[in-house]
Amino acid sequence: MLDQIKIVLSHTTHPGNIGATARAMKVMGLNNLALVNPKMFPSAEATERASKAADILSDAVVYDDIHDALADCRLIVGASARTRSLPSRLVTPRELVELVRTKTSNLPLAILFGTESSGLTNEELHLCHYQVYIPTNPEYSSLNLASAVQLISYEMRLAFSEMKQLPTQRVNESEQPVSREQFDGLLAHFDSAMLKTGYINPKHRKDIDIRMNRLLSKAQITQSEYRVLRGFLSAIENSIN
Amino acid sequence: MLDQIKIVLSHTTHPGNIGATARAMKVMGLNNLALVNPKMFPSAEATERASKAADILSDAVVYDDIHDALADCRLIVGASARTRSLPSRLVTPRELVELVRTKTSNLPLAILFGTESSGLTNEELHLCHYQVYIPTNPEYSSLNLASAVQLISYEMRLAFSEMKQLPTQRVNESEQPVSREQFDGLLAHFDSAMLKTGYINPKHRKDIDIRMNRLLSKAQITQSEYRVLRGFLSAIENSIN
Repeated sequence: MLDQIKIVLSHTTHPGNIGATARAMKVMGLNNLALVNPKMFPSAEATERASKAADILSDAVVYDDIHDALADCRLIVGASARTRSLPSRLVTPRELVELVRTKTSNLPLAILFGTESSGLTNEELHLCHYQVYIPTNPEYSSLNLASAVQLISYEMRLAFSEMKQLPTQRVNESEQPVSREQFDGLLAHFDSAMLKTGYINPKHRKDIDIRMNRLLSKAQITQSEYRVLRGFLSAIENSIN
Repeated sequence: MLDQIKIVLSHTTHPGNIGATARAMKVMGLNNLALVNPKMFPSAEATERASKAADILSDAVVYDDIHDALADCRLIVGASARTRSLPSRLVTPRELVELVRTKTSNLPLAILFGTESSGLTNEELHLCHYQVYIPTNPEYSSLNLASAVQLISYEMRLAFSEMKQLPTQRVNESEQPVSREQFDGLLAHFDSAMLKTGYINPKHRKDIDIRMNRLLSKAQITQSEYRVLRGFLSAIENSIN
């Protein structure tokens, strides 16, 4: 799915931005880059900024006519901070993602970025079905080209991959949570140590117990932490005797 | 709310990344930047990359001790591609946003970024309540520092705009989380009480400190719980004297 998203940079002035765009794409699993009349490409600066995404640069196709770059795409969306579009044609990155996620017949999708200084030309805007608008600070909305690509690629990745796939880890014994029985034993131990030190005033005993219960419960105590606390409480009692 | 989010860059190597971070923040309306032992700052390269966000650079506070940078923060979250954290402590940027959106008493929030080459140190990780993990391409997960800041700031901005509709929630003083400064005081108090009871063997002192740090960090201690624990620890010390 991510293979069917093409990032199209039109008339990019700074080669460093092309390299940073390649890196931003690759980190999120996009790899389809098209360049329309870049001012300077290939370029050592682009390659340097691409870091380990140089393969995306070498696979990038350079066009001199934007129509050719977009020819195989079914949905064309222009990225711009300027909102010269009709409101009905404006989407946020998250709405853009829904446009292709719920309707895959919209793929391949092209996302078109204009030149750094002035964004998309009117001619380029007319080629777009939608305009994607990244919410920014109204007092300073100058999002760097590669940053805009980064944000949109991130939304695409979230939508198209299982979002919650965090690495699984094996948990060893000392990291396992305590049983309820251990938990109750720990609470009772706190209570007796607090009595012994004279910290607990019998009038407030119940209130303190409730607080300790909540505190320890929030901490989701592990076996190793349980041993530390029990050891400390025993040491307190022994040093008072 | 965006004013109460502090971006903390620790031991940043490349000044250009500091500048790009300032720009990434300002575009999303964040303005609170702290630098811990940057390799080179101020720097012409940082200023150039910041573009029109130079005010964020000049307002940035430079620290030589990370504890000072975090002292006023109630929730501390480390950003890292490496997932050495417990699974239960890992959140996506969107989950992180929920942590502060649904519980504004977690503010001020610090988001901590380690050095470019190797990320957060173990010592830095121990200061964090959570670790934020940005989903990336498993084959190339090398997200640029400023890009990571950009993505998290973007999620924060989106949440902030939705937040205006949410009723503001009042949390009374006793339910507010402790500041990092109070937290450090509590940890030191545990350490001294543990020494006094003879529970800590100097050989294992550091190890116990790390465990207590993590345990208390998971619990996100409130002001009232803080008072209970400090009172108990004082009672222990007094009853031993």
